[in-house]
Amino acid sequence: MAQKPSIPKGTRDFSPQEMARRNYIFNTIRDVFTLYGFEQIETPAMETLGTLMGKYGEEGDKLLFKILNSGDYLKDAPDELLAAKDSLHLTNKISEKGLRYDLTVPFARYVVQHRNDLQFPFRRYQIQPVWRADRPQRGRYREFFQCDADVVGTDSLLCEVELICIINEVFSRLGVNVEVHLNNRKVLSGIAEVIGAEDKITDITVAIDKMDKIGLEKVNDELRERGLSDDAIGTLQPLLTLTGSNSEKLATLRTLLAASETGIKGIEEIEFVLKEVAALSLKSAVTLDVSLARGLNYYTGTILEVKALDTEMGSISGGGRYDNLTGVFGVDGLSGVGISFGADRIYDVLNTLNLYPTETTTGTRLMFINFGEREAAQSLRCAMELRKHGIRTEVYPDATKMKKQMGFANDKHIPYVAIIGEAELESGTITVKDMNSGEQHSLTTEQIIEKLR
Amino acid sequence: MAQKPSIPKGTRDFSPQEMARRNYIFNTIRDVFTLYGFEQIETPAMETLGTLMGKYGEEGDKLLFKILNSGDYLKDAPDELLAAKDSLHLTNKISEKGLRYDLTVPFARYVVQHRNDLQFPFRRYQIQPVWRADRPQRGRYREFFQCDADVVGTDSLLCEVELICIINEVFSRLGVNVEVHLNNRKVLSGIAEVIGAEDKITDITVAIDKMDKIGLEKVNDELRERGLSDDAIGTLQPLLTLTGSNSEKLATLRTLLAASETGIKGIEEIEFVLKEVAALSLKSAVTLDVSLARGLNYYTGTILEVKALDTEMGSISGGGRYDNLTGVFGVDGLSGVGISFGADRIYDVLNTLNLYPTETTTGTRLMFINFGEREAAQSLRCAMELRKHGIRTEVYPDATKMKKQMGFANDKHIPYVAIIGEAELESGTITVKDMNSGEQHSLTTEQIIEKLR
Repeated sequence: MAQKPSIPKGTRDFSPQEMARRNYIFNTIRDVFTLYGFEQIETPAMETLGTLMGKYGEEGDKLLFKILNSGDYLKDAPDELLAAKDSLHLTNKISEKGLRYDLTVPFARYVVQHRNDLQFPFRRYQIQPVWRADRPQRGRYREFFQCDADVVGTDSLLCEVELICIINEVFSRLGVNVEVHLNNRKVLSGIAEVIGAEDKITDITVAIDKMDKIGLEKVNDELRERGLSDDAIGTLQPLLTLTGSNSEKLATLRTLLAASETGIKGIEEIEFVLKEVAALSLKSAVTLDVSLARGLNYYTGTILEVKALDTEMGSISGGGRYDNLTGVFGVDGLSGVGISFGADRIYDVLNTLNLYPTETTTGTRLMFINFGEREAAQSLRCAMELRKHGIRTEVYPDATKMKKQMGFANDKHIPYVAIIGEAELESGTITVKDMNSGEQHSLTTEQIIEKLR
Repeated sequence: MAQKPSIPKGTRDFSPQEMARRNYIFNTIRDVFTLYGFEQIETPAMETLGTLMGKYGEEGDKLLFKILNSGDYLKDAPDELLAAKDSLHLTNKISEKGLRYDLTVPFARYVVQHRNDLQFPFRRYQIQPVWRADRPQRGRYREFFQCDADVVGTDSLLCEVELICIINEVFSRLGVNVEVHLNNRKVLSGIAEVIGAEDKITDITVAIDKMDKIGLEKVNDELRERGLSDDAIGTLQPLLTLTGSNSEKLATLRTLLAASETGIKGIEEIEFVLKEVAALSLKSAVTLDVSLARGLNYYTGTILEVKALDTEMGSISGGGRYDNLTGVFGVDGLSGVGISFGADRIYDVLNTLNLYPTETTTGTRLMFINFGEREAAQSLRCAMELRKHGIRTEVYPDATKMKKQMGFANDKHIPYVAIIGEAELESGTITVKDMNSGEQHSLTTEQIIEKLR
């Protein structure tokens, strides 16, 4: 019996139209990356579990797709684990590879593995799918693309400035109005220091990170639950409700964090980045946002996120600076900063706002109707000539009814249909029909090239 | 303790230089596919095991990378399979997804699943990685890219003609001299029929397929081992040693296969394709090769393979016609024909023959030396201006020693270095050094754009 085919949940097929749109986004991002001197690398879909495990927290480990070892994978599996049906501990006995979860850890692994062949500072970009065994929901997939650009081997804040320029340029080209939210992990550390809760920095950032979603009151509740004193929470309030221009916010911060060397360092970094960016008169606004924390713990300096202004979509791009990304692989002291574009969310934004240029299609521009063997042979020859001049051309393969062939061209939105029938064979011309206007002209191959090139 | 990172065997990282070369190949193939009216789709890396299993033979099933179910995957695993350490039968209890093994089966699944949204004949192309748990060796990887183009929904032999045109065009653009080997499964069936061994068609094709590798004598040995009578093997000889031009071979075949209706049909199909191709005066030779069998059993008509003439590399592209690819998914009667370019082997051929154009790089064209904050700020502004005109530009992020910065530009083969020091800040000009000639000029931003655009 035939199976009814389907694909795994959380994954997607992409049709030609969807591919044209996605390629438009990928190509835009790629073009901007290369304009800024970033070079492409690719890493394997599979990494060893040694590379992946422990890098994304306990929850992340569970969300890794693990690949079953080949062959008789149970041969050396401990009997007691099998008898106890201990899935958790059996995993690393029967699986030693997983699908990459993001592009950052494979990049860190790449840098360490190839460091003798790289020139630092190394600017790389990478556009590849990643996989997460997350519960699928609207806008969240188990296979999705990340588009990352990172500079490693320098702690210069000019990199931050240029990454903001890249964000500005990508979204300007795509026609999406965005605001860049900027913060600095050192400011968050300073805050923890000032309220006497340095050991609670993670709890504080996790709670602050939710400001946007759950509001001030519930953030305070959460801080209390996480063991912060009422005093500490009280000191936090002006920070959580900071308003005004960037300079006003910075002034308030300077006062509040005066006692923290780290905090002041963070403020200075933010000031530098804002000053340099201002001098470049970018289209996108850059706003200091102290409530921005970003979940990932490897960030140590600048953090940023990008929000689309004309639609509700959460963050469509984000990143930050890390001081020791490669430490876990045995190479310390490589500072870097990176951003990641969420291609799937950007795709959704462009769909919602209908921002695709009319000409994202890469479909056929001219189709030859097939009237039989002799006519088709001549059509093949003409088609080759047109293609030499870059005109996407197809010849309908079967000599079926003209109506059917015209209907096919119409359904595929092919703009021109060419006819070589008996009369045209004799005269050496081609009848070309403009499918939009309905107009028909008798043309030579050269004239068609002239018209469509 | 830090781990020493590595990647799974049979997989590869691709450096910026390798990516530039690979993209050159992929873009060439993609451009030609679209010129012929093929449209791109993508399918998920993971397919259900229901889709994949049983499509590649027993050996293929073993070579599928299977993904361990998430969560407590052992919960419902039968105790007796665990106790017996029965890897084989446990697999489908703890895994329901696998990585795609090729692009053909996912394409068949796609066509069936989306058939109501497709216009037939449907021309699709697909360029994605596939994964096989094969033993890695020179030129054979566990992750590699396939570039497939297929037309389904027509049995017109014009499709075969156009696919040969595509092969010719791709390899002409890449500068690789190739020969297309052509055969037809109906001819092979006819041969089996004529020698009275119709039930041995698979054995015969598998043995014939090895002609190139092991020679006539060993093929005969193998045919004997596979149960063919000496009589049958005797009748086969003129076919196995067929020589001469395509027409001479066809004439011999017509005589030998006169008694087989299927065989004659195959000969006629070959004749049609050769005639139409000849009329198009392609650069690549197309040769009838009766020893070409291609392993895959779903082929039913034309089969073809492409060999590079100037290096030993086996087949670098191949394909054929299938009458019922989607039957296994419940939709009968969709005939199609396709070709697949082996990107990794083509990459090896281009490397061996050194066929890359000098300008495959997408690296930085101009780098600003960093002399400190004020100079760098001005450099950032100029860099933005250059990028607006498509010039790939970077600013060195740190104000380190000039020698170090020049060395970096040199190591990265950046052709131009720009200097904005104190003097330039004052004069509003930029000193540009041509890294190849060593020449230096004082230019305005506009003059640089003029020069480098």
